[in-house]
Amino acid sequence: MPIAMVMAEASARRGVEILCIGTELLLGNILNSNARWLAEELAALGLPHYRQTVVGDNVERLKESVLEAVDRSRILITTGGLGPTPDDLTTETLAAAFDTPLEERPELWLEIQAKLTAGGSISAISNRKQALFPRGAEILPNPSGTAPGMIWCPRPGFTVITFPGVPSEMKQMWSQTAVPWLRQHGGVADIFVSRLLRFTGIAESTLAEEVSDLLEQSNPTVAPYAGLGEVKLRITARGATVEQARQLLDPVDAELRHRTGLFCYGSDDESLASVVLDLLRQRGETVVVAESCTGGGVGAALAAVPRASEVLLGGVIAYSNAIKQALLGISTDLLHQHGAVSDPVVRAMAEGARQRLGADWSIAVSGVAGPGGGTQAKPVGLVHIAVAGPHGCQASPVQFGVRRGRLAIQELSVVRSLDLLRRFLLDGS
Amino acid sequence: MPIAMVMAEASARRGVEILCIGTELLLGNILNSNARWLAEELAALGLPHYRQTVVGDNVERLKESVLEAVDRSRILITTGGLGPTPDDLTTETLAAAFDTPLEERPELWLEIQAKLTAGGSISAISNRKQALFPRGAEILPNPSGTAPGMIWCPRPGFTVITFPGVPSEMKQMWSQTAVPWLRQHGGVADIFVSRLLRFTGIAESTLAEEVSDLLEQSNPTVAPYAGLGEVKLRITARGATVEQARQLLDPVDAELRHRTGLFCYGSDDESLASVVLDLLRQRGETVVVAESCTGGGVGAALAAVPRASEVLLGGVIAYSNAIKQALLGISTDLLHQHGAVSDPVVRAMAEGARQRLGADWSIAVSGVAGPGGGTQAKPVGLVHIAVAGPHGCQASPVQFGVRRGRLAIQELSVVRSLDLLRRFLLDGS
Repeated sequence: MPIAMVMAEASARRGVEILCIGTELLLGNILNSNARWLAEELAALGLPHYRQTVVGDNVERLKESVLEAVDRSRILITTGGLGPTPDDLTTETLAAAFDTPLEERPELWLEIQAKLTAGGSISAISNRKQALFPRGAEILPNPSGTAPGMIWCPRPGFTVITFPGVPSEMKQMWSQTAVPWLRQHGGVADIFVSRLLRFTGIAESTLAEEVSDLLEQSNPTVAPYAGLGEVKLRITARGATVEQARQLLDPVDAELRHRTGLFCYGSDDESLASVVLDLLRQRGETVVVAESCTGGGVGAALAAVPRASEVLLGGVIAYSNAIKQALLGISTDLLHQHGAVSDPVVRAMAEGARQRLGADWSIAVSGVAGPGGGTQAKPVGLVHIAVAGPHGCQASPVQFGVRRGRLAIQELSVVRSLDLLRRFLLDGS
Repeated sequence: MPIAMVMAEASARRGVEILCIGTELLLGNILNSNARWLAEELAALGLPHYRQTVVGDNVERLKESVLEAVDRSRILITTGGLGPTPDDLTTETLAAAFDTPLEERPELWLEIQAKLTAGGSISAISNRKQALFPRGAEILPNPSGTAPGMIWCPRPGFTVITFPGVPSEMKQMWSQTAVPWLRQHGGVADIFVSRLLRFTGIAESTLAEEVSDLLEQSNPTVAPYAGLGEVKLRITARGATVEQARQLLDPVDAELRHRTGLFCYGSDDESLASVVLDLLRQRGETVVVAESCTGGGVGAALAAVPRASEVLLGGVIAYSNAIKQALLGISTDLLHQHGAVSDPVVRAMAEGARQRLGADWSIAVSGVAGPGGGTQAKPVGLVHIAVAGPHGCQASPVQFGVRRGRLAIQELSVVRSLDLLRRFLLDGS
């Protein structure tokens, strides 16, 4: 059956699936970055993709997974199992699943031998199986490796496209051959454009209630995702052109920002740190940190952003009281009277850092990260944060809860302190 | 049916499956790191695991995947879809798939409200659905978040265990509740004991060649895993008793350490930071940091370890040259002559920090993290590291490569600087 006719029947089935083959994935030896990469590519092509499966190098389970997919989907993309070793079973298992004989492609075998020789290896007889393909399959050339893939319609309306597991080879084969094929035959109708809005200081449930009507829309769709200290909303619009999709997306983006105000701190690849650095850069101002319980985490978050050095001067990790006194000028009296985890001390840390290090702004953090060191008055999870700037100082105690664990308390302290500075910059001065 | 009887039937089915639920995975927004982590944990428990599936937030497809798994496996582990928003569908879909009514657990609803209030959020009515569970399900407590999971046997010999998608919550729930349950009920016939040895400063391929004979053993098995800046070897021994498994494991552990010497820095939950802090604690000594390109990352890595305050005094984030001069006493001449990224300056930073902050030891880091700022003489990826102690200073330049990216260069700098101190403590003094 010609491919065009096969594809005409495709609409009855539900889209694309990804099947990743490799025992190393089931053992947790490697992250399935191929699935993520293919998923993102499919989303960008606007090809609906409903399921990913991982199975090991096992004939029976592989066959079972393939035959299940026939009933559900019109395109099955596989990765892995195209190598020369005995546990590389993909091509022969696919052929067996659809009762189709394997045939050697002599021109491929010559090509594989030439590649091995050119690469300084001796062509092993085991490589010969990489030239075997089911009768009727189109070859999907592999420009860099010895494992070609295939584009094969073993059943009407069902196409399987195979890739090796090596990410660089898979990506090259995808872009050079599979994408043009999918554009022509894969039923790509619409273009999808998506944007991620980022929020902090608001719970996922509260945000979702705030925008619940938009979560129920179908084009664009809006979907919430929660992370540690932040919530994200992904807006995805579908259109005949990028322009058309953007015209649907932009008003929803604007509406979401309008409803959520300062809770929305950025979009896509922005981070709280990058947003704070951008705000300061625009004003031509600088920042330093004075950190106790975060031990340098605020500084590291800022330093993670390219070009941070234009804004971030540095800071003091004042873990011990001696360093708080020596480098930030905190008096013994103040420490004695209020303790290191207190509003007066964290304000003094912020002011001390700002003045002594000669910056426009400063962030100070002092808290009880635990698991030890908590008292009834100052339990684990209590963190004092202060931000000092040209027009004064703002401070706020936060209670992250004793059960969070040390790492989460430290990470949330970093988020909250950056957000305090962001809000101070946006509405406080 | 009591769980013990249910489990007695279990041997007919084929093991464990993982089902990850979330449209963000199908869109390629995030890597499926949960599946990898769970796979590694299952391997360590010796629980055979044959399939991973990913589906989106869609009732029909989720239901279909769950019902397929019933026929194949005896334990289904799910992640994701336990949040409060309308697209969090896991619990209700599971209940519907097995025709079981949902019931509110009033004590859970009180707990969720208390958690939200403690975290400074207002408890939303939508959170109430997180207290709904199918009749008969055991609750899998979530100590840090508002989304509890469950352990539920909806069919004889088939148990589903649900986790939220937030990795930190999932991991905590896994270790605290699911692992003990699986050890008791999961059909683990033999006892598996496993240990993770951690290495740094050696490539995975070199390490694998060094111990290739041990990688081929079947009991205990030894499997390598690579991470950023470290390589791990997991030793897993099988025996009728813990004692018996340990007797098989210990000699292989000893042999691996013997062959690899100082490359092995620790095991299991140890980190380079915790090992360094332990070494210093045993000697009753203290440490400070002086960080330029890592911006506080070394300090934060040390502060992440409980009881770090007994050893870590703090430090200086000397991002700008002005701070290097003011707080660490680096002379203008030295900076002018050699540049901030140089052996003399990083040594002076280490000595300055140690003396001025009154610690026994110090770690200093100065490098070009990029993407900008590289020159032919000092390309992106060049990092100078120094460690100073009571008996002198050791320094070493490292070239991590221009293509690594800023974050990896910063993270590798943290690893390498902690390792330099570890080696100095172990053999240099």
